[in-house]
Amino acid sequence: MNEKGMAADDGKRLFKQVYDHVIHRIEHGEWKAHEKLPSIRQLAEELGVHRLTVFRAYQMLKHNEKVYVKEKSGYYVNPNDPDRVVLEYGEDQPIVASGKLINSLSDIQRVSAAYQFSQALIDPNLLPNLFLSDYVKKVFDLYPKLMGTYSTVQGDEELREVLSRYMMQNHHTQLQASDIMITTGAQQAIDLLSRIFISPMDAVMIERPTYSAAIDIFRQQRARFIPVDIHHYGYDIANVERLMKQYKPRFFYMNPTFHNPTGYTVPSSQRKQLVELAERYRCLLIEDDAFHDMHFDGPPPQPLFTYDTEGWVVYLRSFSKYVAPGLRICAIIASPTVMKLLFTAKSLADNGSPLVNQKIFLHYFQSERLQQHIEKLRIALQVRRDIMEKELTPTGWNWVSPRGGLNLWIKLPEAIPVEQFLKECMQQSISFVPGIICDPLRKMRSQIRLSYSFINEKQLQQGVKNLVTVADRYS
Amino acid sequence: MNEKGMAADDGKRLFKQVYDHVIHRIEHGEWKAHEKLPSIRQLAEELGVHRLTVFRAYQMLKHNEKVYVKEKSGYYVNPNDPDRVVLEYGEDQPIVASGKLINSLSDIQRVSAAYQFSQALIDPNLLPNLFLSDYVKKVFDLYPKLMGTYSTVQGDEELREVLSRYMMQNHHTQLQASDIMITTGAQQAIDLLSRIFISPMDAVMIERPTYSAAIDIFRQQRARFIPVDIHHYGYDIANVERLMKQYKPRFFYMNPTFHNPTGYTVPSSQRKQLVELAERYRCLLIEDDAFHDMHFDGPPPQPLFTYDTEGWVVYLRSFSKYVAPGLRICAIIASPTVMKLLFTAKSLADNGSPLVNQKIFLHYFQSERLQQHIEKLRIALQVRRDIMEKELTPTGWNWVSPRGGLNLWIKLPEAIPVEQFLKECMQQSISFVPGIICDPLRKMRSQIRLSYSFINEKQLQQGVKNLVTVADRYS
Repeated sequence: MNEKGMAADDGKRLFKQVYDHVIHRIEHGEWKAHEKLPSIRQLAEELGVHRLTVFRAYQMLKHNEKVYVKEKSGYYVNPNDPDRVVLEYGEDQPIVASGKLINSLSDIQRVSAAYQFSQALIDPNLLPNLFLSDYVKKVFDLYPKLMGTYSTVQGDEELREVLSRYMMQNHHTQLQASDIMITTGAQQAIDLLSRIFISPMDAVMIERPTYSAAIDIFRQQRARFIPVDIHHYGYDIANVERLMKQYKPRFFYMNPTFHNPTGYTVPSSQRKQLVELAERYRCLLIEDDAFHDMHFDGPPPQPLFTYDTEGWVVYLRSFSKYVAPGLRICAIIASPTVMKLLFTAKSLADNGSPLVNQKIFLHYFQSERLQQHIEKLRIALQVRRDIMEKELTPTGWNWVSPRGGLNLWIKLPEAIPVEQFLKECMQQSISFVPGIICDPLRKMRSQIRLSYSFINEKQLQQGVKNLVTVADRYS
Repeated sequence: MNEKGMAADDGKRLFKQVYDHVIHRIEHGEWKAHEKLPSIRQLAEELGVHRLTVFRAYQMLKHNEKVYVKEKSGYYVNPNDPDRVVLEYGEDQPIVASGKLINSLSDIQRVSAAYQFSQALIDPNLLPNLFLSDYVKKVFDLYPKLMGTYSTVQGDEELREVLSRYMMQNHHTQLQASDIMITTGAQQAIDLLSRIFISPMDAVMIERPTYSAAIDIFRQQRARFIPVDIHHYGYDIANVERLMKQYKPRFFYMNPTFHNPTGYTVPSSQRKQLVELAERYRCLLIEDDAFHDMHFDGPPPQPLFTYDTEGWVVYLRSFSKYVAPGLRICAIIASPTVMKLLFTAKSLADNGSPLVNQKIFLHYFQSERLQQHIEKLRIALQVRRDIMEKELTPTGWNWVSPRGGLNLWIKLPEAIPVEQFLKECMQQSISFVPGIICDPLRKMRSQIRLSYSFINEKQLQQGVKNLVTVADRYS
């Protein structure tokens, strides 16, 4: 390449870097809607580039509708940017409830409601609290220096040993402690994998609908979404193959067992096929198995990772969710290659999850009480699901009865405008998740997710009755 | 802009994205040294761009020495890339100790050594272990449902309330619980701030030497480093001003009190000036105050954030480090603007640190025992520092005696080759941190950091004697 070519290429590189720089600041909310950008001169100085480079970046930002121009004044952040990265739900589709703007799932969940159908969490009253407290005391007798000790980056070895044996017994697969990493909840696991695998513009396959936090995490890394519809019978496998072939996604993030939010389960027959596709098209599968143990009609099919011999499945299992969610224990099972990348990412992110939590969990996990607790919990959840479904039957709304998990995914009649409906429900102290939050394409405007796991039976019944009363106003 | 201009600019954007894409995969270790890149055709298909765009990106990668070409074969990852992002120390300057490659600080710390001078951590035997275990039991009696409860994203409100009152009393500053966020250790805090504020090519001011994990975290975000020397009398303030003016850094990450690794403290007289410079040049100061309470000759100067009225200082205080490091409790104090950004970043990263740890820490923090413990600890550390200095005196090596903190920062005579010295020490079961790991410019080849906090007095004495014996071979 000659010198002139070099200079031109350097110019292009700088141009794109300036462009990205501005986008980053806008997306992170530093430069807000209608705020004036720095002058061309200012930004050129700040970044140490030529003013012409900034000028060209600003022109491109304008062309892409990221900014608008006021004559003789300057460049301003465009609030109507068509493909704005939605870090906050409300910037695209604001929902006003109880006079407050609802910006995201966590906002909806923060609004206190007597009838909480927006939390896919276990009612704390269903957890073995007293027993756990006693257990904790034993754990501290066992490890008197626990408070003074850091965990290793990958997680407590004793816990990983126990989990690997548990997985081998239950899933007939070969595993070692070194194949497992402990993270602070499944969300951290998704975030670490996203930081490792997603570069800007990377294609990522994702179910539609899906776990809303995953959408936000992948968007933050500026992924391109390749959505795959999930149905009660699984995926359209031919379509999955076509998409893998065409887009070569970095991974397919999936939640194939008692899927959140729909409750669907991908059948065994598709699981082996999916692993074969993953191998053939070199597309990692990230299998998020958050609800595995919460089945109502017998255990679900074996996880996809049990079919994997070549390391194309990364398996995430939230273990503490049904036992002691406050401990935030998730296990990632991955091939040595992926584990090495995870190790670096985790060591930079927090250098290892707290050991205290891992040891407390370890000892409870090994106790007989755990199995008894999980069996009781399944029954309790099934009863709650039945109550919710019974109260909803007269409405004629559409849903597929879930055979596990914590949620009902409901298609409302067209006559009910979901955002207005949520607003009115919140005024009645009822909360739920509007489906649009779970949709990577932000179009599912008549679906809602109702969680039946968080409030007790009596409240659940009354809450659903009240919800139906609000809905009746639209008919 | 006309259509032709658009197409050209789109082409440039794609070109840079392909370039970044390859860099990301190389930096994350997916494509390793001497590994063949995908063919131009393959990558073009995978990313859905024109082959010419990939060709041009590959040419630029070659020009920038990221890859090299083998005739009639293809493009290969260049192991000698001059400005390669050093995620792992060893890729630039491999150190071989006990026959094993040492790749990073965590690698050095993982090698078990009888004489651990590489861990800037408190000896677990100095912690109030039994008392803490009793305390935990009380905490669980107080909050029987603790295990079933998630923390809010920002952290337990009761804990933030208590910490804000503590900070007001000790630092004469106005604070509310809403000004504080709890993270899983200081490292997570640095990582969150880095993800918020650093876009690729952003300038970041950083002390030289500094905390090695911060170097790795900022490099991962592809920051440009603007190093500022730290001396026993503080910074060269005129130089700080010149650098802020010239490079407009996004922030200055600093550790001005019992600095890691040097132990230096920036004097009061400079603190107010630095806050004024931060305001004037709109450069955030990230003040990492990890060693505040570990003073030997009276309390250190007030933190910089106490001089800040306009929100230009983000303050990080590790609270659990001297009490119960296993709990991993760090507090970030920040302006409402920064707190809002932190809130989004933390909610994506893990949705809140575990509540169990926060409640245990809260109750111990409020007990009288805490103050007694900290006072005892200061004396114990001072004794250990004295032992280490006494044993080192005959060597004639250079260091400034630290008035707080956990480390001695030593300049060895030129005759001692640090890497070889470390290797031989490790063979004698002695570990320390080579200074180069703490240097953003990777040039400090004759400094070492010795931590005196982790092993008991007797071992400390013996370990330093042995270390000096090894060093004597070079004289």
